[in-house]
Amino acid sequence: MYTYNQLLNFANQVFLKMGCSAADADTAARTLVSADLRGVDSHGVARLCGYVRLWDIGRINPTPDIRITHETPSTAVVDGDGGLGLVVGPKAMGIAMAKAVEVGTGWVAVNNSSHFGIAGCHSMQALEQDMIGICMTNASPLVAPTWSKEPLLGTNPIAVAIPAGEEPPFVADFATTTAAYGKLEILQRKKEDAPLGWIQDKDGRPSTNSFELKDGGSLLPLGSDREHGSHKGYCLASIVDIFSAVLSGANYGPWVPPFVGFLPVTDDMPGKGIGHFFGALRVDAFQPKDQFKSQMDNWIKQFRRATPVDEQDAVLIPGDPERMIAEERINSGFDILRPVENDLKALAEKFEIEI
Amino acid sequence: MYTYNQLLNFANQVFLKMGCSAADADTAARTLVSADLRGVDSHGVARLCGYVRLWDIGRINPTPDIRITHETPSTAVVDGDGGLGLVVGPKAMGIAMAKAVEVGTGWVAVNNSSHFGIAGCHSMQALEQDMIGICMTNASPLVAPTWSKEPLLGTNPIAVAIPAGEEPPFVADFATTTAAYGKLEILQRKKEDAPLGWIQDKDGRPSTNSFELKDGGSLLPLGSDREHGSHKGYCLASIVDIFSAVLSGANYGPWVPPFVGFLPVTDDMPGKGIGHFFGALRVDAFQPKDQFKSQMDNWIKQFRRATPVDEQDAVLIPGDPERMIAEERINSGFDILRPVENDLKALAEKFEIEI
Repeated sequence: MYTYNQLLNFANQVFLKMGCSAADADTAARTLVSADLRGVDSHGVARLCGYVRLWDIGRINPTPDIRITHETPSTAVVDGDGGLGLVVGPKAMGIAMAKAVEVGTGWVAVNNSSHFGIAGCHSMQALEQDMIGICMTNASPLVAPTWSKEPLLGTNPIAVAIPAGEEPPFVADFATTTAAYGKLEILQRKKEDAPLGWIQDKDGRPSTNSFELKDGGSLLPLGSDREHGSHKGYCLASIVDIFSAVLSGANYGPWVPPFVGFLPVTDDMPGKGIGHFFGALRVDAFQPKDQFKSQMDNWIKQFRRATPVDEQDAVLIPGDPERMIAEERINSGFDILRPVENDLKALAEKFEIEI
Repeated sequence: MYTYNQLLNFANQVFLKMGCSAADADTAARTLVSADLRGVDSHGVARLCGYVRLWDIGRINPTPDIRITHETPSTAVVDGDGGLGLVVGPKAMGIAMAKAVEVGTGWVAVNNSSHFGIAGCHSMQALEQDMIGICMTNASPLVAPTWSKEPLLGTNPIAVAIPAGEEPPFVADFATTTAAYGKLEILQRKKEDAPLGWIQDKDGRPSTNSFELKDGGSLLPLGSDREHGSHKGYCLASIVDIFSAVLSGANYGPWVPPFVGFLPVTDDMPGKGIGHFFGALRVDAFQPKDQFKSQMDNWIKQFRRATPVDEQDAVLIPGDPERMIAEERINSGFDILRPVENDLKALAEKFEIEI
């Protein structure tokens, strides 16, 4: 068992050893560990050695000059200068929020970035200033459009955080696939099959083999098949790709560079790095702040009051499960899987730091 | 068979007889018939008698004073004054676009409106000025959140239209349920069962009875069940509800007034009418216009080139199916179902007009 501060301090030290400034190492560590905190273990310290491998081969710039290359009063395009998405993300969301202070909303498209951790963390940054936060990112191609044999889209998540009053905020954060890739990794680790509707094989046929992606298979868009609305999941993943990368000048579709360092980056790429998109809407650009929050409380309470189906305790509000995990882990600590712990120890040895 | 102009002129005359101004009747008719044109027959002239029934009982104001009640440089709240959503929608999108001209993007939340036809039509308005258009609306409760026995959400569609260069625009327009209500109506008309995953019965159990909603059942959010991501469809429908109604001051969740005139409106409602949300993003607030369009062409062409699964001709781009139907109907005419034709003839008689 590890405490929150142990994980945070360790990640902080790793980012310092990579050459990040003290401020950037702090930002990156907090963003990374927010994934462990919220129960998205695939995106937390388990990825630390992945970031280090990319840095080792020169695909992460630890001292990026993150800058606005084009802007209007409500929009900006940000060049992440090959930095850690964990640092680029919070800076870009800060720019969106500063624009929202001025003109009601702010919208920032980012190119030349890398993996930014969990989308939910960035959208929640807006809550601090009573704003709605929106965040999305593209990712390397694992997902087949409806009727395609080829994976052309990433799991392209969308996160939306909305402030409430007495109630905790509404926080939606989800991959636009039927199941996130992390869910598949859990099954692979246990050598278990996947439910029908999560993946297809290289010929586009339904498959339950959780290792199918290694053999040319793909994840399926939210909806699973045409009859159950997979064209809608395909639309959502496409919108995320276009907003994150075509609006920003990053790579899109099959050209998104892979997170893993052992896969090569091709040289015919249409843009720079991976792309993100951030939005901030000041609540009081629409309604008096207190009125909005009290209506959100009313919305949330009404949904909590809904009669659950017999085997369930209660109807949940988006953000409830992650908040409950965070509370439990802050109290009881973080149980890190043995292979992840071994990776962290290897990093400790590499950088001569303590875990 | 009817021509496009026949349907347009007939709808125009009906709206004039309801007391709309010439300009508003023209707007309403074009918006309504755009649904028939794009193959969404449930939202086109088939609904004309529904609008008339609401007008008959005083729930549609044919001469609304549609006005901005609050604004910032990039946002506005619009009071639809109980008007036809078919008229309120285009005006609100126009306000969003005017704001985008000034500050890069515009975002308009609308209260006190009514059914606005298909969401796609409104988002496509932005294409005329090389903007990305976003549109969503809430609707009367037919959809159960994940694990709920009760329908608390509407089919709450999202539409996003993105301009391209040589290629036709990307236009996504979809209900946030596994299947749109119109799809269920088609099965009801044929007395056929629905696929598993579209609906649940009053106890939250999976059902294939296409008449289940009349007996306390609900439509299911996109994803169908928890294992296939229905919590993501629930998130999407909730986001649409909150953006359309909590940001605007309209009714949300179970309080959204029904489209059908025979159902009563309760008097403990938290807001006014139904709500919509519109967004317009100037493409050149992010990238030089021509560069954006050529990258969109590249995106679209790459997806068209994907190898389709064996039984399919090609991988489609969002908007392709509706555009193909529109081309065919402009050439060959509109086949109106007998019961709809009878409704139109009854309207012709009521208003003493020709069809």
